[in-house]
Amino acid sequence: MAVPSARRGAGRPKRRVLSRRLILETGLRLMDAHGVDRAGMRAIADELGVRPSSLYNHVAGTADLIAGVRELISDRIDTGVFAAAPWDAALEAWARSYRSAFAAHPPTIALLAVTPLAERSDTTRMYDAVVAGLVRAGWPPERVLTVIVALESFILGSALDYEAADDMFEPGPRADVPAFTAAYRARERALAASGTRPADAAFELGLRALVSGLRAEHAALTRG
Amino acid sequence: MAVPSARRGAGRPKRRVLSRRLILETGLRLMDAHGVDRAGMRAIADELGVRPSSLYNHVAGTADLIAGVRELISDRIDTGVFAAAPWDAALEAWARSYRSAFAAHPPTIALLAVTPLAERSDTTRMYDAVVAGLVRAGWPPERVLTVIVALESFILGSALDYEAADDMFEPGPRADVPAFTAAYRARERALAASGTRPADAAFELGLRALVSGLRAEHAALTRG
Repeated sequence: MAVPSARRGAGRPKRRVLSRRLILETGLRLMDAHGVDRAGMRAIADELGVRPSSLYNHVAGTADLIAGVRELISDRIDTGVFAAAPWDAALEAWARSYRSAFAAHPPTIALLAVTPLAERSDTTRMYDAVVAGLVRAGWPPERVLTVIVALESFILGSALDYEAADDMFEPGPRADVPAFTAAYRARERALAASGTRPADAAFELGLRALVSGLRAEHAALTRG
Repeated sequence: MAVPSARRGAGRPKRRVLSRRLILETGLRLMDAHGVDRAGMRAIADELGVRPSSLYNHVAGTADLIAGVRELISDRIDTGVFAAAPWDAALEAWARSYRSAFAAHPPTIALLAVTPLAERSDTTRMYDAVVAGLVRAGWPPERVLTVIVALESFILGSALDYEAADDMFEPGPRADVPAFTAAYRARERALAASGTRPADAAFELGLRALVSGLRAEHAALTRG
């Protein structure tokens, strides 16, 4: 997957043109393949066949790398819907898009959940669109980030669950958990009939319940 | 922290009495301190000052180690409340206890979220109590595990968020995210006034919304 240099002369060996984008995408690829501990600046340099020092013209260090990887992922989260749909429908569409973006990169979830937003992060602009949509709909400004973080916890937990095997709860032949076994078999039959994955069923049920509860909260707040 | 052997003769050097419990607790401690990749059988043996082979009398290998660590944590999740309280109040109490148990061990969250339950896992008995409580309350058996997994996604995401710094969303002085900045400052003031951590406010709001949405779902299902 060598990237040919636009500037190389005829007959010279191919060289990658280093760019911030290439470095971040390589970092994300290494995180997905080997975990976040094996995707640092040195590992990226090895992967690209360059000296670590040459990366620092484009990425300032580990914190900047993580901030950049967050933007690669959060750029794929759609917030346009907040301009077009009612807040509750927009929140659901945003949640689906957000879960898909992170479900594609499970090793980043726990890392990004606890890493502060960088100072000039584009991700903050993503949040700005969501906040503005909720405030326009009447949510009190002091409550909006709490709503967003609550939904985000559900989304990130669901993105982790997306990776779990469909039969991760398979009880096998044991006889000491009869209620659990009956529920497991009943779910298995119901989901097989509709062709739904357990993780998708749980995400959709939880999202519906959460947004329905938020709708009740919103009604109580805007009525008062 | 050497554990004196009950059987050692007078004057002989202290030796740890290896037990399954000691091995699992050491593994969990190493996971918390250094991450799950640095808490394998060899790392545990080094930590305990024993040969790796001597661990295998108590723990069958990596899969058994992970299963045992899961039980250490899930043993602290209270399900007794399902025998005493209505299903919705019980679910809330279970969720709080579950989040606390995992918030104490963040590095295990992503690992355990995708590791299948072991064949004779005590954790399955924990789930059995929750399932039985929900079925007794009228939830259709085929729906119960979907409810539990949805709530679990929210709980595990919230346990990750519990580790985040209170100011992880601090926008700083930037001027290009006005809605976000106003909401951040308003939340900061409101939470400071009540002495609440952002992670706790989000967990409680989300839990209330989720359970309220489930209550509406339950009413629709049991009415029909």
